[in-house]
Amino acid sequence: MAEVRNRKVLLKRYVTGYPAEDDMEVVDGTVHLAVPQGLQAPAVRLKNLYLSCDAWMRGRMSKRDDPVTVVNDFVLGEALTNFGVSMVIDSTHPDYHAGDLVWGMSGWEEYTLISEPASLVRINHPELPLSYYTGVLGMSGLTAFAGLFDVCKPKKGDTFFVSAAFGAVGQIVGQLAKLAGCYVVGSVGSDEKVSLLKGKLGFDDAINYRKEPDLGAALSRCFPEGIDIYFDNVGGATLDAALLCMRTRGRVAVCGMVSQYNLDDPAAGVRMRNLPLLVAKRIRMEGFNVADYLADGPYYRWFEEEMAGYLRDGRVTYVEDVVEGLHGAPAALVGIFQGRNVGRQLIVVARE
Amino acid sequence: MAEVRNRKVLLKRYVTGYPAEDDMEVVDGTVHLAVPQGLQAPAVRLKNLYLSCDAWMRGRMSKRDDPVTVVNDFVLGEALTNFGVSMVIDSTHPDYHAGDLVWGMSGWEEYTLISEPASLVRINHPELPLSYYTGVLGMSGLTAFAGLFDVCKPKKGDTFFVSAAFGAVGQIVGQLAKLAGCYVVGSVGSDEKVSLLKGKLGFDDAINYRKEPDLGAALSRCFPEGIDIYFDNVGGATLDAALLCMRTRGRVAVCGMVSQYNLDDPAAGVRMRNLPLLVAKRIRMEGFNVADYLADGPYYRWFEEEMAGYLRDGRVTYVEDVVEGLHGAPAALVGIFQGRNVGRQLIVVARE
Repeated sequence: MAEVRNRKVLLKRYVTGYPAEDDMEVVDGTVHLAVPQGLQAPAVRLKNLYLSCDAWMRGRMSKRDDPVTVVNDFVLGEALTNFGVSMVIDSTHPDYHAGDLVWGMSGWEEYTLISEPASLVRINHPELPLSYYTGVLGMSGLTAFAGLFDVCKPKKGDTFFVSAAFGAVGQIVGQLAKLAGCYVVGSVGSDEKVSLLKGKLGFDDAINYRKEPDLGAALSRCFPEGIDIYFDNVGGATLDAALLCMRTRGRVAVCGMVSQYNLDDPAAGVRMRNLPLLVAKRIRMEGFNVADYLADGPYYRWFEEEMAGYLRDGRVTYVEDVVEGLHGAPAALVGIFQGRNVGRQLIVVARE
Repeated sequence: MAEVRNRKVLLKRYVTGYPAEDDMEVVDGTVHLAVPQGLQAPAVRLKNLYLSCDAWMRGRMSKRDDPVTVVNDFVLGEALTNFGVSMVIDSTHPDYHAGDLVWGMSGWEEYTLISEPASLVRINHPELPLSYYTGVLGMSGLTAFAGLFDVCKPKKGDTFFVSAAFGAVGQIVGQLAKLAGCYVVGSVGSDEKVSLLKGKLGFDDAINYRKEPDLGAALSRCFPEGIDIYFDNVGGATLDAALLCMRTRGRVAVCGMVSQYNLDDPAAGVRMRNLPLLVAKRIRMEGFNVADYLADGPYYRWFEEEMAGYLRDGRVTYVEDVVEGLHGAPAALVGIFQGRNVGRQLIVVARE
């Protein structure tokens, strides 16, 4: 097979505070497409089509003694990694053949060699947009689905609040909570997103947190009888305000704490005043991680069928913010922390 | 019946920051011991024998818009209230008779009229020290028992950490966790208490947090493989350090957050840096309140029999710090926040 260009997005230096575009570098190398001879185990060469661009990558961009995410730090001088949708172009593994469509952990580059092909997930619904497997049919959708039904356990009539509500996970979990019969309110960082949540995604209400001097008061206005379930994507001041508004026996599913990922001085932490309300209100707060569900094949396949059905009949809508080409990837990742993306941020490497 | 002296401890003013002795006042009045004629419902006159003196009373000493405890604020100029052990000396209720021994919410005074006698709990084990019903056989014991078995759900071999470990609840929950097969470490505020925990109460290890410049390091030393269960009585920096040392799928039972009760500026809150670890470690953090168990008669009676058995055969030991007479009650309450008490603080009003 041919030797071709392989464009990559590398990590140039470990990050403190907010990441900047020049913490990364886009470089062009070359690659022999064939899986190399003489590897110890069967392997697969992928051509990457779509790559996820997520806030949780930030944790991996620092060198840490006590990692705050469940995966390893990125390696300096190597391509960033994250979930993506790819096509197999060469394989020495009997279960994979050229032309197979898969999703899984891949590189921020054009072609990636996968030495553990068992980590790849087959795509069963290529009739839907393939890019959905970076989001609503991939990790984000599974995170929303498992977090809602396994951790939050919503009942009809529950009041449901989600932060980062127009993000990769937020927009899905809000729509699923609506389908489960909840009253759903989201917080977002712009009036445009407020309109999209209420108009396009059918949320009952939404707040622009940047325009609310008192988040607790805003939540009390949206939830005069309190919050049964808070799906937390941001932590910090939003979590603190939500605790104030929780009902007795409320549940907080902690999916992420994006507000704490970029602190200049992580040792300083964030100020919390309402944690004692956990006792008075008997609140259950539970962190969960989608990694616990991925290995569980049947759970993912059940989710994939359910979600494909929702998407086909229009009960769930998914908004994507698409960047064309790897050269735009660093700006896209930096933009997430400024709330620049509108909907699920992804990068198109190739359309086939 | 006679008119007699009724000494009381009143709240003189609402408190900001730490309570001081002169926020309270000890005054002598008089009382007719007979239950008054013409009440709308049957009532009971109690002679108070032992009164509980607890950190959680602090919350009720402030006037609050958003109460952080589950009971009402104290009323200025009236006797403080808390759980106590009492003898019935007059009754117009058919279920109670002079001489009955009961425990329940009473006043910080010599004689209290109870207008809802259904709130009183009969004492089934008068052969044990009656004062135990202010603690190990009362609210503190029930809190430890329900918190451990209903919320923490310990398994044999679990590692167990408890803060305020020589307090009313801490010393019991640590011993129960030992009985359940856990490795148990407590944090306390003096070397004397460290010795008592390890010597008298059989804890596996203990730390004096005042002597530890880095609480997280101290916990890592005590728990080289991490903490499965943290029973939190204090919140704040200790909770933050415990989160750092929790194992994956660890559980935090939040019983109280005494470190946050006396903040000069509650709006400033406390700095927390490790909450994002809830996600990475899939930690479940759950507040609970003993009030949910008290109304449940059979649960309390089950607990009472179990605990009476542990006390009789010496598997649970209970250390009390006894103040003689109501005149010493304000200093005893203030002393709790300075860690002055050694063991469960209680006040003897009368020995029979």
